[in-house]
Amino acid sequence: MKYEDNFHTMKENSILFDEIIEEKKTIGYYNLVYQDTIEFKNYAKGVKQSNIVIIGIGGSTLGTYAIYDFLKNSNKFEKKLIFLETTDPLDIKAKLNNIKLEDSLFIVISKSGTTIETLAIFKYIHTLITIDKSNCLIITENDSKLNNYAKVHKIKTFDIPKNVGGRFSVFSAVGLVPLAIIGVDIDALLDGTKEVYNSFFKKEELYSRILKKARFFTEYKYKFNINIIFSYSSMLEGFNKWYIQLWGESLGKIDSNDIEQGLTPLGLIGPIDQHSFLQLIIDGKKDKTITFIKVDDFKSDLTIPNITLAKLEEIDYINQIPFSELINFQADATIKAISDIKKIPYDVIHIKGISENSIAKLMYEYELLTSICAKLLHINAYDQPGVESGKIILKNKLMDMER
Amino acid sequence: MKYEDNFHTMKENSILFDEIIEEKKTIGYYNLVYQDTIEFKNYAKGVKQSNIVIIGIGGSTLGTYAIYDFLKNSNKFEKKLIFLETTDPLDIKAKLNNIKLEDSLFIVISKSGTTIETLAIFKYIHTLITIDKSNCLIITENDSKLNNYAKVHKIKTFDIPKNVGGRFSVFSAVGLVPLAIIGVDIDALLDGTKEVYNSFFKKEELYSRILKKARFFTEYKYKFNINIIFSYSSMLEGFNKWYIQLWGESLGKIDSNDIEQGLTPLGLIGPIDQHSFLQLIIDGKKDKTITFIKVDDFKSDLTIPNITLAKLEEIDYINQIPFSELINFQADATIKAISDIKKIPYDVIHIKGISENSIAKLMYEYELLTSICAKLLHINAYDQPGVESGKIILKNKLMDMER
Repeated sequence: MKYEDNFHTMKENSILFDEIIEEKKTIGYYNLVYQDTIEFKNYAKGVKQSNIVIIGIGGSTLGTYAIYDFLKNSNKFEKKLIFLETTDPLDIKAKLNNIKLEDSLFIVISKSGTTIETLAIFKYIHTLITIDKSNCLIITENDSKLNNYAKVHKIKTFDIPKNVGGRFSVFSAVGLVPLAIIGVDIDALLDGTKEVYNSFFKKEELYSRILKKARFFTEYKYKFNINIIFSYSSMLEGFNKWYIQLWGESLGKIDSNDIEQGLTPLGLIGPIDQHSFLQLIIDGKKDKTITFIKVDDFKSDLTIPNITLAKLEEIDYINQIPFSELINFQADATIKAISDIKKIPYDVIHIKGISENSIAKLMYEYELLTSICAKLLHINAYDQPGVESGKIILKNKLMDMER
Repeated sequence: MKYEDNFHTMKENSILFDEIIEEKKTIGYYNLVYQDTIEFKNYAKGVKQSNIVIIGIGGSTLGTYAIYDFLKNSNKFEKKLIFLETTDPLDIKAKLNNIKLEDSLFIVISKSGTTIETLAIFKYIHTLITIDKSNCLIITENDSKLNNYAKVHKIKTFDIPKNVGGRFSVFSAVGLVPLAIIGVDIDALLDGTKEVYNSFFKKEELYSRILKKARFFTEYKYKFNINIIFSYSSMLEGFNKWYIQLWGESLGKIDSNDIEQGLTPLGLIGPIDQHSFLQLIIDGKKDKTITFIKVDDFKSDLTIPNITLAKLEEIDYINQIPFSELINFQADATIKAISDIKKIPYDVIHIKGISENSIAKLMYEYELLTSICAKLLHINAYDQPGVESGKIILKNKLMDMER
């Protein structure tokens, strides 16, 4: 009896782990945790401008924004971050109208160095102000055409390592340099990633947790094709957006069995979305997993006062509750409602306080989770063949135009 | 031979239309298009404050924000809208730190009048500034406890009609009053809704279009359980959020055959999400429909200059293209890439310019589409039984606490 097959099937954990160790030799983001940041910090110290304008799109901005969005309400940054990340003309105009161009540093970020949105906006900036080494920084691959442009004009550059993909680049110069400039403690960020890295690679708590979650998500991918992150803090909206890119673009692929794969990411903010999307989760089709994110310590004493409003005496039961507790009670009530239904898989991540450490841990955990899910789905997490076709159509169209 | 069944099945268009006509007698949002706005405009004229602070959550804010977000870059509003819509203490603090409270009007919006997030924030505001009829407006049902509070303090109120649900209330006082105050032409908004209303109820273009789309979405609900809106303008991000609530909360229900229904809404912004989520659409599981929204006229002459950057000569093909054309070319290229694949159902809505008329038409069309889909899914679009369980759990927990 002869037998052949072309099946690729899920590996057991030990083999999977060996493959990740092997992958770590060529995929760069894993090892960013141990990089030296002295050059970034020295550059950051010398920046005099108040407005830090990042020109970039997708992986060049989303991670930086996620960290900035998380920290901006509790840190007093002396500089302002502005993101020019779309070709929408009214958006560009509104953002530039708000700042003094003479007091701005323009950071152009593009891995390939030829991203047309980024270069279009950069060209436009040239019509408003003289661009030179005094007000420009370029972050790109070390041999890109944008890097060559920088050399001609003696503009300072930082490299994006070739083996670090855009959506996994937040802990490279892409994120660390702009964040260092505005005053984020980038070593504390990396310390956070190290904690996760060590726990995972020493097969401690995060190893079990990430593997179990990845196995659940991939084993039940046909039943639960939507993975929701339900963040109980408005400061995690940027994180939600970053997650959507990371998850969607890494896992939406044709696998080695030639089957279309893809887990759909979705981001919600509590308590706001309790008043909307929760209805679909509770009574709708049970095709979603939910990951709740709770902030354990907001370090805020903002409290509902002990005040009675005439005719509204019945709601005095909320009096004297700190808002930081109320929002977590709301999260707990939603979790309880969902767990009572039983058919909705969920997990809860608690993050400790609003700090560099906590957001970095969360993001690095999600990067690892994405890599493991990709292995279990038999896909390459790090390419994006599907977005190329549109780029070629656009380029051909623009090149054919008469002007 | 005897036979019985308990099937509820899709009706043909003429019967469906008759049911909508019947529903229009009791469901209030349909008829908001012909309301008198004189009282709203008169009140708006008298408002002297510069900061208009809306305290509300979910349906009380999302529609207003959608319209404001769409118009704010091209209109010069003399007043600022601020939304306090979460219990996140750092969000509340950051927003209030940014404004002069003495120059603020506080608009408390709650249909039931007992939304705890809204009342918690309102109570907190009392500790910062004296609240009275000079700096407060209340929008609620005419017999709610919040309305009674207003009467005691002689605070001006506007009614939310009982038969207009929160997520369908943007064209009632909920949206029109704050928007009128900052200078939005609310009659132009209603004119937009009238165009859609007439086209639909006279069985003209929008009748066929909405019915066809609703039938497609519901007939293929098991194959395509995710409905994406891909908006090619950053100014439609608020619209996307409003759509997510409208769609998710209206259609996520147990139907009259006792089956869990639910089409999952998802909002994307082009060209940004071309650099991320598009990969999942193209190569991932084909479980999504896409509705592209294109703005036909941005009324902007912002243009990529005729500048050559040293070593980047190869991208000179983008020179002299107006950004308003570039963003639409990008949309077209994405649409072409998706249509080439063939397995992804999509439609394209063109909106004419950045105006009250165009956003109102888009929103009213989506309200009608939601109502028709609900009929075809044999569900009630206007209730939200699923979100009540969490509210009860929370209330019990808070009432049991010792303080």
